[in-house]
Amino acid sequence: MEKLARVLVDFSVKAGEGEQAIISGGAGAEPLIKAVYARLLQNGAIPIPQIQLPGMQGLFFEHAQDSHYQKTPPIVRNMYEQADAFISIMAPHNTRALAGVDPIRQQSLGRRDKAMLELMLGKGRWVLTLFPTVALAQESDMGLSEYEEFVFEAMGLNHEDPVRYWEQKSEEQARLAERLEAAREIRIVAPETDLTLSVEGRKFVNSTVEHNLPGSEVFTGPVEDSANGTIHFGVPANVSGRDVSGVRFRFEDGKVVEASAEKGEEYLNTMLDADAGARYLGELGIGTNYGIPRATRNILFDEKLGGTVHLAVGRSYEETGGKNESSVHWDLICDLRDGGGLYADGELIQENGKFVGYDFGGR
Amino acid sequence: MEKLARVLVDFSVKAGEGEQAIISGGAGAEPLIKAVYARLLQNGAIPIPQIQLPGMQGLFFEHAQDSHYQKTPPIVRNMYEQADAFISIMAPHNTRALAGVDPIRQQSLGRRDKAMLELMLGKGRWVLTLFPTVALAQESDMGLSEYEEFVFEAMGLNHEDPVRYWEQKSEEQARLAERLEAAREIRIVAPETDLTLSVEGRKFVNSTVEHNLPGSEVFTGPVEDSANGTIHFGVPANVSGRDVSGVRFRFEDGKVVEASAEKGEEYLNTMLDADAGARYLGELGIGTNYGIPRATRNILFDEKLGGTVHLAVGRSYEETGGKNESSVHWDLICDLRDGGGLYADGELIQENGKFVGYDFGGR
Repeated sequence: MEKLARVLVDFSVKAGEGEQAIISGGAGAEPLIKAVYARLLQNGAIPIPQIQLPGMQGLFFEHAQDSHYQKTPPIVRNMYEQADAFISIMAPHNTRALAGVDPIRQQSLGRRDKAMLELMLGKGRWVLTLFPTVALAQESDMGLSEYEEFVFEAMGLNHEDPVRYWEQKSEEQARLAERLEAAREIRIVAPETDLTLSVEGRKFVNSTVEHNLPGSEVFTGPVEDSANGTIHFGVPANVSGRDVSGVRFRFEDGKVVEASAEKGEEYLNTMLDADAGARYLGELGIGTNYGIPRATRNILFDEKLGGTVHLAVGRSYEETGGKNESSVHWDLICDLRDGGGLYADGELIQENGKFVGYDFGGR
Repeated sequence: MEKLARVLVDFSVKAGEGEQAIISGGAGAEPLIKAVYARLLQNGAIPIPQIQLPGMQGLFFEHAQDSHYQKTPPIVRNMYEQADAFISIMAPHNTRALAGVDPIRQQSLGRRDKAMLELMLGKGRWVLTLFPTVALAQESDMGLSEYEEFVFEAMGLNHEDPVRYWEQKSEEQARLAERLEAAREIRIVAPETDLTLSVEGRKFVNSTVEHNLPGSEVFTGPVEDSANGTIHFGVPANVSGRDVSGVRFRFEDGKVVEASAEKGEEYLNTMLDADAGARYLGELGIGTNYGIPRATRNILFDEKLGGTVHLAVGRSYEETGGKNESSVHWDLICDLRDGGGLYADGELIQENGKFVGYDFGGR
């Protein structure tokens, strides 16, 4: 916990003397929240804990009036305005708690707080991580101690000096990002998948653990009207407590014109119809974390999985040069480890999930 | 929990449409925090939960730098400025957790946040209550379920309509307060105790559950230079995790000129020397809650105990007309149930803990 707290505080958000840092997390993350709290104090930073109790979000959707969806509470808005850094710790008590909540209400809440998200992203000093709970272990078909090992391995905490480990990773990713940024067209090939998209003029961001723990990936915002072809997202997901799996998209000139899912199709369509930007791509990401052996229906981990790529419909990240706007940002994951290929202007970059000419450990 | 939440939200702080209400409490109070959260939403009010985790306060004292004692974090200050109502729920995980903390540091923190306390008191809409935890049961020499029953009985929750119950109590207390307000001098007699003090021109506040649950008491701020005599506080206390018992004071013209304690004497002296106002009285309170059968080293309950009076050294409450200023407000309890008497201008008001001419139930 102390190792992890140091990475989050010293490396990810770099919170120091007199800076106010919000620690938000579920009460189940108590050991990590306390380690982060102590580390912030040691650095002279001012921790502002914002703890959620199990079932609280469900109570909101159960009892909130229409007025509660209109605007972010002024106290919360002020908190986002004044904070210098944000450390968010997912620690669900029940990963399916919101399965029965009307997705329209969830979208309303998302729209209400969109400006808070923008404030946080705009300040740049934010990090999202996860604390292994029984609920997450269950969702991953593991016992708790097995899952803890899985989480810490993915985070690089088994290395003596995790910061050094991530710095080395960052150097290799920088090479990969440079190669991809030089390309005009990316092609993704896999079973039931053949998709091309333009990345001309866009930036590939080299992301290790500045914003997500675990990292790592390189990602960009593809040219909005460029995606053409079909893709099958074979990695199942849990989205707000709902199973969504076997998603297939057909793109024409950047837009999702056909969408189906083996599970969760109705929810998928609700999301795609949320607003004008929700059927266009906001992100192409390429996972480089081979310390994650398999998917666990948790997007923070699955999208980093070495041998997969992910596409997000909806909002793009400004730093990539992406221009898509939406209240949605939904990552879907395509597995390239069995018969897949990734090409940059026709050059093979990855085959069957293994990079060609880049070493990210693991395989 | 729903009954209690209704008393707190609808009766005590009266939080309604669009008002921001801070719910602060330990994570151990989860069922009550959630009931209050739901009730606020139902009323159209905006709940702002501020949850503490076990051991967090101890971590502050362990790791905080000098700078952390200088000023209240701006985000917290803003929260106090913007909030319309405050619901605080004590739910300690360990009632002795702070026993080893330097009292000087605790006083520094108290001074740092004094303006926050003033802001909250100034708004008038605040309430303090308690959720029965194992630690509190242990401190009270009871099992948890026995202690829960003790707490709910003291709060009047076993009555079908607790609000009506407290309203009736308030009417009887109003009579008592009126009688006391007409007096110039109060005299407290008990074993090792004979103290007189002037209440001339001061207001007796009739307090049921507007600010404390459980209520109830009537209290005033005695004339600052009027206390003369000796008093023995026979009810033992747990103050910030420390045992303090057998306290004896001798007053001269309002000032504590001699102080001793059977336990915690060093801590007692540190408190009395905190500032110029700490040796003068800020409060005389008279407990009227006969639903509390005995003391439990918890000031929120003990000071309400029917058949006791309490004196606080330090800060007085503005609404009483009291003028004493201090960063300290420490209530000490004198038991009148065995050989005690309370007189107003020589008239016997209470004998052996039983009121003469006033009916507060119980006895």
